[in-house]
Amino acid sequence: MKVEGKHYRSIWLAADGWAAEIIDQTRLPHEFVIERLETLEDAARAIETMQVRGAPLIGATAAYGLCLALRTDASDDALEAADARLRRTRPTAVNLMWALDEMLGVIRNIPRADRVAAAYRRAGEICDEDVETCRAIGQNGLSLIEEVAANKPGKTVNILTHCNAGWIATVDWGTALAPIYMAHDKGIAVHVWADETRPRNQGAALTAWELNSHGVPHAIIADNAGGHLMQHGKVDLVITGTDRTAANGDVCNKIGTYLKALAARDNNVPFYVALPHTTIDWSIMDGVRDIPIEERDAREVTHMRGRTASGAMETIEISSPGSGAANPAFDVTPARLVSGLITERGVCAASHEGLLGLYPERRDDES
Amino acid sequence: MKVEGKHYRSIWLAADGWAAEIIDQTRLPHEFVIERLETLEDAARAIETMQVRGAPLIGATAAYGLCLALRTDASDDALEAADARLRRTRPTAVNLMWALDEMLGVIRNIPRADRVAAAYRRAGEICDEDVETCRAIGQNGLSLIEEVAANKPGKTVNILTHCNAGWIATVDWGTALAPIYMAHDKGIAVHVWADETRPRNQGAALTAWELNSHGVPHAIIADNAGGHLMQHGKVDLVITGTDRTAANGDVCNKIGTYLKALAARDNNVPFYVALPHTTIDWSIMDGVRDIPIEERDAREVTHMRGRTASGAMETIEISSPGSGAANPAFDVTPARLVSGLITERGVCAASHEGLLGLYPERRDDES
Repeated sequence: MKVEGKHYRSIWLAADGWAAEIIDQTRLPHEFVIERLETLEDAARAIETMQVRGAPLIGATAAYGLCLALRTDASDDALEAADARLRRTRPTAVNLMWALDEMLGVIRNIPRADRVAAAYRRAGEICDEDVETCRAIGQNGLSLIEEVAANKPGKTVNILTHCNAGWIATVDWGTALAPIYMAHDKGIAVHVWADETRPRNQGAALTAWELNSHGVPHAIIADNAGGHLMQHGKVDLVITGTDRTAANGDVCNKIGTYLKALAARDNNVPFYVALPHTTIDWSIMDGVRDIPIEERDAREVTHMRGRTASGAMETIEISSPGSGAANPAFDVTPARLVSGLITERGVCAASHEGLLGLYPERRDDES
Repeated sequence: MKVEGKHYRSIWLAADGWAAEIIDQTRLPHEFVIERLETLEDAARAIETMQVRGAPLIGATAAYGLCLALRTDASDDALEAADARLRRTRPTAVNLMWALDEMLGVIRNIPRADRVAAAYRRAGEICDEDVETCRAIGQNGLSLIEEVAANKPGKTVNILTHCNAGWIATVDWGTALAPIYMAHDKGIAVHVWADETRPRNQGAALTAWELNSHGVPHAIIADNAGGHLMQHGKVDLVITGTDRTAANGDVCNKIGTYLKALAARDNNVPFYVALPHTTIDWSIMDGVRDIPIEERDAREVTHMRGRTASGAMETIEISSPGSGAANPAFDVTPARLVSGLITERGVCAASHEGLLGLYPERRDDES
């Protein structure tokens, strides 16, 4: 999407055709810095340090990381080592493993001399496929926004989102934000309530930055505010992303999503979740019970990083120094609270039957 | 309650019997500084700059402010001027007006020579009455905690609270925290989940500081985390305070309280609200509809203050610079989500009938 009027993806092949270039997301929203990844180590570190984040983008970066490794040494041993190095970067990211499997699939059984070209080709395809997937999610979600807009002609459609499921978490478009960008680009008056998303503030930092850069009207709100806004008719629709969707439609997403789903239900506000099929975990039939929740560093809660008035980046302690903190990073919203799932194949009920309707090949798997 | 083993109130008469002393709450949790209020202006500014906050403590500080004014000049004119000055400090605080009315009631119609003594006496009584009210709330809430404890012998009772309704918001004990202090002091194993309470972080800064200072086990959590903890059986009870309680039992409290009430209901966790009768607004019969909600400065959301590693206090911008923020400060939890109201007279249903059962004199008012 656009940054100061110019179109960007979150990762792209440099003009010289060698390096991959990324937007350093650790410096957003305060600085827009493009980083050149020239080696396997550059790519691995970009993932580890969260210069790139978001499952699809992590996968794409790993794919290019393998390309960069092969340029130096296209032997089987080098390939194994590079693959192992990249798999260690974010051990729980399903997309990372998927992208590396894809890459190995096309590289492993061909002559060394052909490997570099094949790798770049497949890495490029992985990126393009992700853009297409997100575009399709956007199109399918767009019709939901158009429905709301049709019911309040001349008025702005207010959409609440939590965390960042925007274009910089994918290669382009995003998941939850894709329908919003499409509605905005089409001239529908949309306004986004961006939950700040404590403790890491992805909403205030990344979603707000994306929306501001592309020109979509929005306001940041404390995570506490959404219920009140819904109670007073100021939210027409909630759309979030998801990190993992159980086969029964339970949705694991950034901590706090469940609270917004409860508020949406209490106020008859539709609550949709946008996802590519790659986030569906067909092996889990009870997401609330069986999806493990990562507990992260307490310092994410007790400390905060930002920019001082003088422009320097500074970390401050924001809580009582003697106190500890608990920091579960995700929660699971039960399917009963989800109005529907927006996928690249269409919108379905948040249920096993709903998902099987869109992915009938899975029905065959099970029978 | 205790700070490093020593008992404090949040306001007290200095040893010389003249000044009032307070804990400067703008410097908590990073520094514990006692401030001496020697003049009317000292008291007024302490309220305005939020060195003291919390309705009961604001009232008590205003009462002492009037005493300090009268020491300099006990004339009717000086009394009027002091009263007007103090009323301007926080124009929407009901307790402030109540405390000043109380003070005027005992001072106005007595000889000048007697006014100073009468003022100090009444200010002292206002403080003592508040302590007694909070102690009674604590006793009534304690029985709820004891019930939970009896049902899980040998195990810790986990209580979630939102914002700060502790002893430093009152003169001592607090409202929501009073039952918790009593349970802890009695040897019941309690553990508190302290919602950080964005955007002003009263939970992480003040509630955590209080609990830590008194030695009550606790952990700070992002406001997003409570639903997940309840879903997984890690919360036995929620107790919050309230800024205004409607006559139908709807409860206005710090933004985000409503979301926790929804999660409590969804997980069958009892949700109680502790309050002195002074917060009941008998004129409002539909709190969700009729309690006005203050919209505060966007900078509370976009900026944050805390301590750097070098010990300096610093303000940082934490969100995307180009983006605005909305900042509703309170929300209203519908009575249907409230398990009960804990008052100084007992625990009642969150309903008009429930409240009238504890305050039958109000029934006479209405008939």
